[in-house]
Amino acid sequence: MHFKLAFIGFGTVGQGLTEILLEKKDMLAEQYDFNYIIVAISDIMKGSVYEKYGLDMYKILDLVKNGKKLDEYPTGIKDLDSLATIKKSNADTIVEVTYTDIKTGEPAITYIKTALGAGKNVVSTNKGPVVKQAVELLKMAESNNAHYGFEGVVLAGTPALNLARFSLAGNKINGFKGILNGTTNYILTRMEEGMSYDNALKKAQVLGYAEADPTGDVEGLDALGKVVILSNVVLGKNIGWKDVERKGITEITKDEIVKAKAEGKRWKLIGSAEIQSDGSVKAKVWPEKLPLSDPLASVNEAINALTYHTDELGPITIVGPGAGRRETGFSLLIDLLEINRKS
Amino acid sequence: MHFKLAFIGFGTVGQGLTEILLEKKDMLAEQYDFNYIIVAISDIMKGSVYEKYGLDMYKILDLVKNGKKLDEYPTGIKDLDSLATIKKSNADTIVEVTYTDIKTGEPAITYIKTALGAGKNVVSTNKGPVVKQAVELLKMAESNNAHYGFEGVVLAGTPALNLARFSLAGNKINGFKGILNGTTNYILTRMEEGMSYDNALKKAQVLGYAEADPTGDVEGLDALGKVVILSNVVLGKNIGWKDVERKGITEITKDEIVKAKAEGKRWKLIGSAEIQSDGSVKAKVWPEKLPLSDPLASVNEAINALTYHTDELGPITIVGPGAGRRETGFSLLIDLLEINRKS
Repeated sequence: MHFKLAFIGFGTVGQGLTEILLEKKDMLAEQYDFNYIIVAISDIMKGSVYEKYGLDMYKILDLVKNGKKLDEYPTGIKDLDSLATIKKSNADTIVEVTYTDIKTGEPAITYIKTALGAGKNVVSTNKGPVVKQAVELLKMAESNNAHYGFEGVVLAGTPALNLARFSLAGNKINGFKGILNGTTNYILTRMEEGMSYDNALKKAQVLGYAEADPTGDVEGLDALGKVVILSNVVLGKNIGWKDVERKGITEITKDEIVKAKAEGKRWKLIGSAEIQSDGSVKAKVWPEKLPLSDPLASVNEAINALTYHTDELGPITIVGPGAGRRETGFSLLIDLLEINRKS
Repeated sequence: MHFKLAFIGFGTVGQGLTEILLEKKDMLAEQYDFNYIIVAISDIMKGSVYEKYGLDMYKILDLVKNGKKLDEYPTGIKDLDSLATIKKSNADTIVEVTYTDIKTGEPAITYIKTALGAGKNVVSTNKGPVVKQAVELLKMAESNNAHYGFEGVVLAGTPALNLARFSLAGNKINGFKGILNGTTNYILTRMEEGMSYDNALKKAQVLGYAEADPTGDVEGLDALGKVVILSNVVLGKNIGWKDVERKGITEITKDEIVKAKAEGKRWKLIGSAEIQSDGSVKAKVWPEKLPLSDPLASVNEAINALTYHTDELGPITIVGPGAGRRETGFSLLIDLLEINRKS
């Protein structure tokens, strides 16, 4: 396929994808018959530019990295906002990577619906729309003969959704259990080495794993969003934010961690869901003391892991990065390659 | 797609796939638009039967489980041998699960070439043909517009090849490292608990993990075959049996295992290959003392695991079963679903 891409939002993830697309242009064309031009970018801070025969993305990256606005790009149309870019540009596929409120899912939901409604494919790393409206948006994509891909919302570029959907096809997946948040896993790893919670958190912040306000990570909200997504997309249920029991890691003391170590166990923040015999889902995010024989117990640092419970194969686990600028950018390429295969 | 399948060989793996196909018939049709009839079976011991509008597979399983020959099936043509079944039946897809010599790859290679040459798809769990001629057979499939699938040859139904080929597409995979043999992993797990090598081997034999002559497993030959396959199919190289350094587990003493445990380490039989800076591959099967922080260290019992070294995502690990009648049967369904997606 020859993609015409438009970026809505152009922060670190969008730039990460752009770098990958530029560096791998030849390889993608040769190995996968994947070809592309990037026709438009619209970013609330950086401005917008539309050039129907394709932008010079080296020039674009140069502008952005020097803190300049997209208006300074030498040619093209500059006055389209994000909605107009989606509607009026000749892009067939929208890379939706805006800064979006995870609770409301906006403005991403509006952008995604606008694109799908116009029959344009969407690939997006925003969790909010998937948490709130995965089923609805997937149906909308199908009825408009378009694709809505969001591989990056669970484990960034680690292909957890792709694995469930394609590689494990034919199985019934009855549940899952995983380390779905890298920040808390990093903190727990440092605490087991003897560091205090406060110092481990500070170190996570210095390394860019944790934000200034770490609540979303340490209270288990980020993991909770992923449990909702996996329950709805992989288990085929329709649960919401409030259907998941939640406890974060802030009450785990150094003493408890030392005690677990002496028992040959290890504390992990586990996100899980299991289909019950009545068809309902029991979902939670909760700290668990795992025996070291559990494949999840040895997953340390900021690494993520996810075990699916399948009917034919038993537990299948995937382990890989769960965050990162380039890793999350790469998740968008997984979605684009999926569209490419289907076309 | 509406498959017309013919089984060449009908041992435990073929029967395992048949059970899955029967139990999941409705689910496969509804979820994947995957439909099938089984038109022929040819087995060197059980005889053969061909019925162009489809066999009643419940009747077939009944016959086979009662030790009867396929000749006793009430209708159909009974005098076709395996080659004739491939050539003369109306099957579009051959399930090749014969008893085959892993060293020569025969008779599987002959069957596979005959089928591909006639433009028929092949799915197979035989390692021999992939070890010996993967590149050639894949090219032959392509030029005949057919598909040659062999997901089961590495980790049975754990979708290790599918993961590399599709879910990790866009990455350059530069190497891998894995626990590729369940029998030896089971023995090492028991030895760490205090059992002697001889007793652990006996227990593995009782459980059906190890054969009466365990050489293929304990000397690392089975793992070696998988290293050759992964090097050729995933790393894109063309190495043979003799290009892999090999050492099995028979020289690991209980003392060494106890000593490793005291150091917080664990012995594993590791199959690995890495592309070198000159483009060559360094491949080996060798016992390694892994720190418990290595994701492979906590993979115990007869479970297998494989870590791919990717350029975009770093190490990506998949953990799951590496053997089993039904699990290996399921690997054929993964291949069939792949053909179904492409068609």
